[in-house]
Amino acid sequence: MIARGTPGFTGADLANLVNEAALNAARYNKKLVAMGDFELAKDKVLMGAERKSMVISNEEKRVTAYHEAGHTLVGLKVPNADPVHKVTIIPRGMALVVTQQLPEGDRHNYSQEYLLGQIAILMGGRIAEETFLNSITTGASNDIERATELARAMVCEYGMSEMGPLTFGKKEEQIFLGREIAQHRDFSEDTAIKIDEQVKKIVTFQFDRAKAIIEENRDIMVRLAECLLERESLDGVEIRRIVAGLPLDESTPLSDGGDEDRPQLKEPSTKPLKPILPPITGGNPAPA
Amino acid sequence: MIARGTPGFTGADLANLVNEAALNAARYNKKLVAMGDFELAKDKVLMGAERKSMVISNEEKRVTAYHEAGHTLVGLKVPNADPVHKVTIIPRGMALVVTQQLPEGDRHNYSQEYLLGQIAILMGGRIAEETFLNSITTGASNDIERATELARAMVCEYGMSEMGPLTFGKKEEQIFLGREIAQHRDFSEDTAIKIDEQVKKIVTFQFDRAKAIIEENRDIMVRLAECLLERESLDGVEIRRIVAGLPLDESTPLSDGGDEDRPQLKEPSTKPLKPILPPITGGNPAPA
Amino acid sequence: MIARGTPGFTGADLANLVNEAALNAARYNKKLVAMGDFELAKDKVLMGAERKSMVISNEEKRVTAYHEAGHTLVGLKVPNADPVHKVTIIPRGMALVVTQQLPEGDRHNYSQEYLLGQIAILMGGRIAEETFLNSITTGASNDIERATELARAMVCEYGMSEMGPLTFGKKEEQIFLGREIAQHRDFSEDTAIKIDEQVKKIVTFQFDRAKAIIEENRDIMVRLAECLLERESLDGVEIRRIVAGLPLDESTPLSDGGDEDRPQLKEPSTKPLKPILPPITGGNPAPA
Amino acid sequence: MIARGTPGFTGADLANLVNEAALNAARYNKKLVAMGDFELAKDKVLMGAERKSMVISNEEKRVTAYHEAGHTLVGLKVPNADPVHKVTIIPRGMALVVTQQLPEGDRHNYSQEYLLGQIAILMGGRIAEETFLNSITTGASNDIERATELARAMVCEYGMSEMGPLTFGKKEEQIFLGREIAQHRDFSEDTAIKIDEQVKKIVTFQFDRAKAIIEENRDIMVRLAECLLERESLDGVEIRRIVAGLPLDESTPLSDGGDEDRPQLKEPSTKPLKPILPPITGGNPAPA
Amino acid sequence: MIARGTPGFTGADLANLVNEAALNAARYNKKLVAMGDFELAKDKVLMGAERKSMVISNEEKRVTAYHEAGHTLVGLKVPNADPVHKVTIIPRGMALVVTQQLPEGDRHNYSQEYLLGQIAILMGGRIAEETFLNSITTGASNDIERATELARAMVCEYGMSEMGPLTFGKKEEQIFLGREIAQHRDFSEDTAIKIDEQVKKIVTFQFDRAKAIIEENRDIMVRLAECLLERESLDGVEIRRIVAGLPLDESTPLSDGGDEDRPQLKEPSTKPLKPILPPITGGNPAPA
Amino acid sequence: MIARGTPGFTGADLANLVNEAALNAARYNKKLVAMGDFELAKDKVLMGAERKSMVISNEEKRVTAYHEAGHTLVGLKVPNADPVHKVTIIPRGMALVVTQQLPEGDRHNYSQEYLLGQIAILMGGRIAEETFLNSITTGASNDIERATELARAMVCEYGMSEMGPLTFGKKEEQIFLGREIAQHRDFSEDTAIKIDEQVKKIVTFQFDRAKAIIEENRDIMVRLAECLLERESLDGVEIRRIVAGLPLDESTPLSDGGDEDRPQLKEPSTKPLKPILPPITGGNPAPA
Repeated sequence: MIARGTPGFTGADLANLVNEAALNAARYNKKLVAMGDFELAKDKVLMGAERKSMVISNEEKRVTAYHEAGHTLVGLKVPNADPVHKVTIIPRGMALVVTQQLPEGDRHNYSQEYLLGQIAILMGGRIAEETFLNSITTGASNDIERATELARAMVCEYGMSEMGPLTFGKKEEQIFLGREIAQHRDFSEDTAIKIDEQVKKIVTFQFDRAKAIIEENRDIMVRLAECLLERESLDGVEIRRIVAGLPLDESTPLSDGGDEDRPQLKEPSTKPLKPILPPITGGNPAPA
Repeated sequence: MIARGTPGFTGADLANLVNEAALNAARYNKKLVAMGDFELAKDKVLMGAERKSMVISNEEKRVTAYHEAGHTLVGLKVPNADPVHKVTIIPRGMALVVTQQLPEGDRHNYSQEYLLGQIAILMGGRIAEETFLNSITTGASNDIERATELARAMVCEYGMSEMGPLTFGKKEEQIFLGREIAQHRDFSEDTAIKIDEQVKKIVTFQFDRAKAIIEENRDIMVRLAECLLERESLDGVEIRRIVAGLPLDESTPLSDGGDEDRPQLKEPSTKPLKPILPPITGGNPAPA
Repeated sequence: MIARGTPGFTGADLANLVNEAALNAARYNKKLVAMGDFELAKDKVLMGAERKSMVISNEEKRVTAYHEAGHTLVGLKVPNADPVHKVTIIPRGMALVVTQQLPEGDRHNYSQEYLLGQIAILMGGRIAEETFLNSITTGASNDIERATELARAMVCEYGMSEMGPLTFGKKEEQIFLGREIAQHRDFSEDTAIKIDEQVKKIVTFQFDRAKAIIEENRDIMVRLAECLLERESLDGVEIRRIVAGLPLDESTPLSDGGDEDRPQLKEPSTKPLKPILPPITGGNPAPA
Repeated sequence: MIARGTPGFTGADLANLVNEAALNAARYNKKLVAMGDFELAKDKVLMGAERKSMVISNEEKRVTAYHEAGHTLVGLKVPNADPVHKVTIIPRGMALVVTQQLPEGDRHNYSQEYLLGQIAILMGGRIAEETFLNSITTGASNDIERATELARAMVCEYGMSEMGPLTFGKKEEQIFLGREIAQHRDFSEDTAIKIDEQVKKIVTFQFDRAKAIIEENRDIMVRLAECLLERESLDGVEIRRIVAGLPLDESTPLSDGGDEDRPQLKEPSTKPLKPILPPITGGNPAPA
Repeated sequence: MIARGTPGFTGADLANLVNEAALNAARYNKKLVAMGDFELAKDKVLMGAERKSMVISNEEKRVTAYHEAGHTLVGLKVPNADPVHKVTIIPRGMALVVTQQLPEGDRHNYSQEYLLGQIAILMGGRIAEETFLNSITTGASNDIERATELARAMVCEYGMSEMGPLTFGKKEEQIFLGREIAQHRDFSEDTAIKIDEQVKKIVTFQFDRAKAIIEENRDIMVRLAECLLERESLDGVEIRRIVAGLPLDESTPLSDGGDEDRPQLKEPSTKPLKPILPPITGGNPAPA
Repeated sequence: MIARGTPGFTGADLANLVNEAALNAARYNKKLVAMGDFELAKDKVLMGAERKSMVISNEEKRVTAYHEAGHTLVGLKVPNADPVHKVTIIPRGMALVVTQQLPEGDRHNYSQEYLLGQIAILMGGRIAEETFLNSITTGASNDIERATELARAMVCEYGMSEMGPLTFGKKEEQIFLGREIAQHRDFSEDTAIKIDEQVKKIVTFQFDRAKAIIEENRDIMVRLAECLLERESLDGVEIRRIVAGLPLDESTPLSDGGDEDRPQLKEPSTKPLKPILPPITGGNPAPA
């Protein structure tokens, strides 16, 4: 059960996880490391330690709750997205850690549809703020940056736009530090204009797609955000119950927060390996 | 009372504050550190040491007084701005230390409305000089720079303009020094033109907004500036008395210069945590 | 036989090959190093070690199989291309290692026709994904980058476009590291626009050429991909049998995977030295 | 008297001044350091040591005399300019050391009117050469550079042009050396064109203003230049006598060359602190 | 005789030459160093050591033979070109080492006519490939680069184009390494466009000129290339015999490969110093 | 007499001169250092050592003679130019060392007229080649570079063009090496176009001016060049005799090659200090 909830974990990651679980058990003077300790350890390793001592205003908590609920809802409704493990508004823990980096050197590839879904999910936070709180904040700046980078990579590196199957620009790296410092521009101003148009088109289209998802699910959104505000964090099972319109309390917290977080899925054991390469649906929002 | 007046202070900051207060008390051979010593220590820590020895012409003092009064008045009238602790024209002490930096890595976010307010406040100094002294000076250059940077960040980083939810440009840092040296431009000239237009639009709009506030409050402005010229510094209570049209002398200097500086606020203990995320009002000047 | 299958090998490469073969034999406690050991050693040296332990989803394997089959089919149908030794979908082994680098300092030259063929082959992977799986992935990003670089070199370095027999741009190198860091641009924006047009034209034309090849050989493509999915790797003889419509099983695995991989070639011993400089056929797809 | 003639002097500067005065006295075997020694010491500290040994042609001396007279005359006629202490054509001593640098970090500010005046003064040298000697020389290149920098700062840093209250560009510094190496351009080409227009407009307007002043005072200019040619240096009192049309010889050289150099000023002791922030007069030449 | 064949040789070069000749003699156990040893030594010093062991396909040899024959023929027909010493297709030996570098610091100058001739010669290789083998290869990329550099220098450094007697751009060097890293561009985009046009015009005109020469001498070209293919290298006398339509075999290999390589020249001893500055003929191909 | 011929010499330069003269005397075993030794020493110090051993073709000598004669003739006919000391075609000695650098830090200034004259003189060499030898060579590339730099400085640094009294661009220096590496461009593309136009206008105008001078003095030019070819170097007196149409032989070589090199000048002792700042004549060629 733990193995299924920790895809991509290296041996060192797993050692770390076990160590954290042991520390949890020791903290409460338990003689045995229980499943609950592993759950907490997994959360900590996946999402960072909680910082409950940090003082946040109620207003800011509300903004965060709606923001994160926006990501979560769009993540559930967009086809082929990564499953949602948990969502939380406790500082330093961001549940929806969507594709922090596209692992280039890795053999695992991403489909155009998956990438478009990621951009839609990233837009979800800002849209939720705007729709329900009538305000936009700087909290979305990191989402916006990552969405722009993804869209630019689709245009300039992956050949996934109207620019065709060509690459544009060359990365410059600081050699001793292994850090990319600049994208060397080896194309004309005309091409730069077209690239900007394509990038904007991609992001704007996904923004509209995510907005439609949120507008169509206003009630779920509000319930999700308010539950999150109340409980501070929700696991996959709880999220599915909210989306399905069920009461939260029946859920058994230890059942499985790993991969089975789409309520309509019947056989969780075979499906999780599948949805990475779906048929393309033209980038339109599709009901899950 | 001190805690409420020192939000964001670290342990080291507080240690520093207590130390300064002790030094104040020692300077006058007092056996006890009184509240007044803490007040002076807080001012010094928050705004730097006074440099009374520096010779400034009367003309320049007047310019400074009107300049600072302009910031103060706009800061009071713009909704959701940070509360004003103190304003002073003693060299090296600038009371209205508005958003020196937007703390990126922090979890605290700023709303679009708040950022627009900050730009308006920054414009207040130049407008006051122009309106009452019929002259503009280089004294506003730092305000202008910060306002431009804020507006540019709204357009290029926060997705808060007509450019939409995208980021533009990439920061280059000098790695060993942690200093940003240049904004790497990864967009076309066409996009650059649109960014410039948006930045100008934002700053100009807030300039007009601040100008309207100052024009509507000419009498208060003059009284604020002249009191500042006379006393060299005013605390939150004094400022509120001036704005309310009350005589200055009744005020007790030690009451509380922290958060309760809006005269119309009834319950200072709960409100201060609230105004950070207000409903957006379209960026128009609103009477407080 | 081994010599013919390892063109361009230096003495050190051959020493490495013999060493690997010895290790293979030792692994199975053989007293003699057999031909099969040399075959496996050659594969490892040419294509890297297999990484069978890596877990890949069935979906991803399918994408890879069609992608590689696309490269293979176009490589067989384009005249004058390098012979195909082997194709595999085992991670870290890429059979179709087409012209990783154009060896500049070397005396061996490449014809325009050969380079155009290489671009078509590089396009084959993406086209196969799109045509048979109705999806495009980031897996083609390296192909796209190399195709763009080849096309750009044809325009800017080899004088093989409508830009005429001139060079454009100057390479800047980091001297101590021998790495090119930037292409110094010494031409006007007007010239940059024309270069971009030529580069796009070359890549687009070869994309269409490869697409035509794949469309015309849909049945072969599917069989090739499905066999590859089943067996995980195919050698030159097996590929030729598939393309010729023959059953796979008769093939003797050790016969010769080196140079004789075009079924219709009659005299493999003299031909392999020939096809490097063919009559130009205008860049159109020609049946082999 | 010395204190009034050395505004802005630090303790170290004053120590240096006294030392130089003592050296002067010692040079002539005087037992007392007289006021005259302090005068010479002040000149040396303010304007550098004289280099009388350097051979200059009569023609070149004439050019220099008219050039410096041009600066001096415009400096007297422009309102709010710094008072003129001395003017000289002895090599290495330039009397009219106008605003070498705008001290940014300092609390002292400059009004728009003052900056425009400085540009007019800087233009005075070139105009005098052109008007009276019918020749222009490279001697004005440093004046032109400083005028351009001032005008550019007004547009790009001080918000004192039609570009509005925004800043343009970001200074890049060489960190270890504290030297600005480049102005990082973060704006579009369109904005660059507007900046250039504004800069040119400012400089050209002040050029015309200075030209009008010189044309209206041709007789004074010639007399000033010819006296300068004859005596090689003139102090504030002598300059005032020339401008007032009085004979030079009555003046007592030790009276006071410090601040009282405007003939029409009645109370020199209070006025010198005043003219730094005057009412704006639209940048037009105004009779002093 | 050796001295005449080694113009520009320093003392060290000559010492090297004698040493190589001695090694040649020693290799065959000769007691005397004969003229033939000096000839071989001169070839090695001038053109690098032969690399006969390198395996080249017949096809590639043919391309090289026609390529080099193209250079040779144009070099013979263009007036004022440097005399042809030898031509070879043995790897690493390139006989026609035309103006590797223009020695700037040297007092020897080059006429416009000479430079245009060099560009035509450089074009000869590519044209021969295209004309006789119906293929173009990357083998001409170095020729194209040098021709472009020469043409650019004529426009930007030598004032030999319609741009007039001005220079454009400034070389930047890496100071410690003495290497030029970039051409600093100090001109406008408009000027850049004009420079590109001039450079293209020069190269294109010489391409057409060289093409006309090769077209008019198809028979000679084929004979030259085929002889070269057969013998692998030809000296000046052999080349002249081929061009004159004479049989190769009569030639005495040791006669003189130095300067007398134009068959129609009558007095080789005085002429060689002359042709460096000829009357300009408008850049048209002229029969030698 | 030596002092007058060595303006600008430092003490070290003079010591060097005397040393060289002593060496000259010692070389011929003379017991006394005669005036002739000083003359030769002055030439060597001013123009570098002769390199008679270098082999130059007659053709190249002729080009050099006409080139240098072109500089000399224009230098004599342009008003206010520096006097011509000597002209020579011996390698490494260039007699007409015109304004190698404009000494910025120095107090000596140059008039617009002088600078225009320098550009005309620099053009003289190329024009002479073209007019009399019907050929242009790379020998003028350094002249062209310096003329372009002078013209650019007039436009961008000295305010001596239609761009008005502004500076354009900022020099970047490599700090530790004191070398300018790049002209930092702080202006718009529009301004760059205008600068290019002005620079071209200045150079072209002076080219035409120099051409007119040479065309009007064809006979003198030919005689000057042919005498130079015959004698290899001419001093000021000889040049004046040629220009005046007198035979060369009467001249006494030791008379004075310093400053009196204009035949029509009557009082050489007073005039040499005068011509540095002449009335402007609009840049037209004026008979001396």
